[in-house]
Amino acid sequence: MRYQLYYWPMIQGRGEYVRLALEDAGADYTDVARAGNGMAAMMKMMEAKKGTPPFAPPFLKAGALVIGQTANILLYLGARHGLAPKTEGGRLWVHQLQLTIADFVLEIHDTHHPLGPSLYYEDQRAPAKKRTEEFWKERVPKYLGYFEDLVQANGGTYVTGRRLTYADLSLFQIAEGLRYAFPKRMKAFEKNIPGLVALRDRVAARPNIKAYLASDRRIPFNEEGIFRRYKALDL
Amino acid sequence: MRYQLYYWPMIQGRGEYVRLALEDAGADYTDVARAGNGMAAMMKMMEAKKGTPPFAPPFLKAGALVIGQTANILLYLGARHGLAPKTEGGRLWVHQLQLTIADFVLEIHDTHHPLGPSLYYEDQRAPAKKRTEEFWKERVPKYLGYFEDLVQANGGTYVTGRRLTYADLSLFQIAEGLRYAFPKRMKAFEKNIPGLVALRDRVAARPNIKAYLASDRRIPFNEEGIFRRYKALDL
Repeated sequence: MRYQLYYWPMIQGRGEYVRLALEDAGADYTDVARAGNGMAAMMKMMEAKKGTPPFAPPFLKAGALVIGQTANILLYLGARHGLAPKTEGGRLWVHQLQLTIADFVLEIHDTHHPLGPSLYYEDQRAPAKKRTEEFWKERVPKYLGYFEDLVQANGGTYVTGRRLTYADLSLFQIAEGLRYAFPKRMKAFEKNIPGLVALRDRVAARPNIKAYLASDRRIPFNEEGIFRRYKALDL
Repeated sequence: MRYQLYYWPMIQGRGEYVRLALEDAGADYTDVARAGNGMAAMMKMMEAKKGTPPFAPPFLKAGALVIGQTANILLYLGARHGLAPKTEGGRLWVHQLQLTIADFVLEIHDTHHPLGPSLYYEDQRAPAKKRTEEFWKERVPKYLGYFEDLVQANGGTYVTGRRLTYADLSLFQIAEGLRYAFPKRMKAFEKNIPGLVALRDRVAARPNIKAYLASDRRIPFNEEGIFRRYKALDL
């Protein structure tokens, strides 16, 4: 089956967690909004008044299904492409980790948009600075410390053990994104998370991921996405 | 099977979405942290260095499983207690709606905590006011407008059609919470969402929910939870 991924064409954003899963699985997919009149098609599906219109991108068309919400898409893909355990308990555990990553992603976004997603960063520089301080002081140690403990407790390979799941691909993206957005802060912090850094390297070296990162299918980080490099927030 | 729900004992918070599902289903459960040394038991499970320790409450012990993240718990309960469709597409759709509600809940929390969850409201009054303005101007119409359209498109009974799902119980809680936290703003806004108001009434009238709301198992709203009544934010 050829999947159709719908996501904003100029950013990695939340769509990137889905792209990484599709790429690692070697799945056949089209990144619809990046070509032709894909953007118009995407907007049309969101504005549908019948059926199951998604609230926001990303969403995935898989045969007759249209699946929205990043973690929900990964739940679906994980079961079909060997990116999650087959047992119910295993599947729920990986999904739980992904939902915790999703919470962290929202907090990352809030570092530059504490007053809400509808205002520009330029209109919230001072609160962004305060929120970012709090983020690095309290939240990064809490979230990344949690995942680091799991990696260590499970033998140091992947977050749930010896087999890769979609949650590992997402943790790779988190590490890449924090390195991009906060190069100084992240450099200083990485000594606390050797397991996650090794996991990041392990994911980056997977053949399909390596090929993807070197291709133009991987959109470069930029200041329209979740991870934004604003000097004022890095130190 | 007797479930054990672990959540902070003094607030409705995210645990309430799970409580409403358990109550509507008439499921047998203990709200562990509300009695005896339940709080200590909860903290111990979160601090476990092996197995599948949750990042945060709520989590549900169901036999040998420990399931964390509100939407994940509902995914599990929905399938077992007739609170979600049986088809894969139906299950994913209800879960997608729940994840969209979860995003909205985080934004509701950010109205009083725009600078992050680790600081007190009293230390972020001015940004909270700005964020709340934006929230009611942009975000409430977007989220509640989306759910209102779905209710209307599906015949006006529940959000996915004629049968109640756990997403409807959560939408009830959203309506109750917004009425509590922002009585003036919500009163003015409700004319835009007649379908959701009717859905709220329909849920409130369900016998198990009605009994629950009248019991002391329902913790009253207060200023430690997600929905907080701060006069300065209501007008």
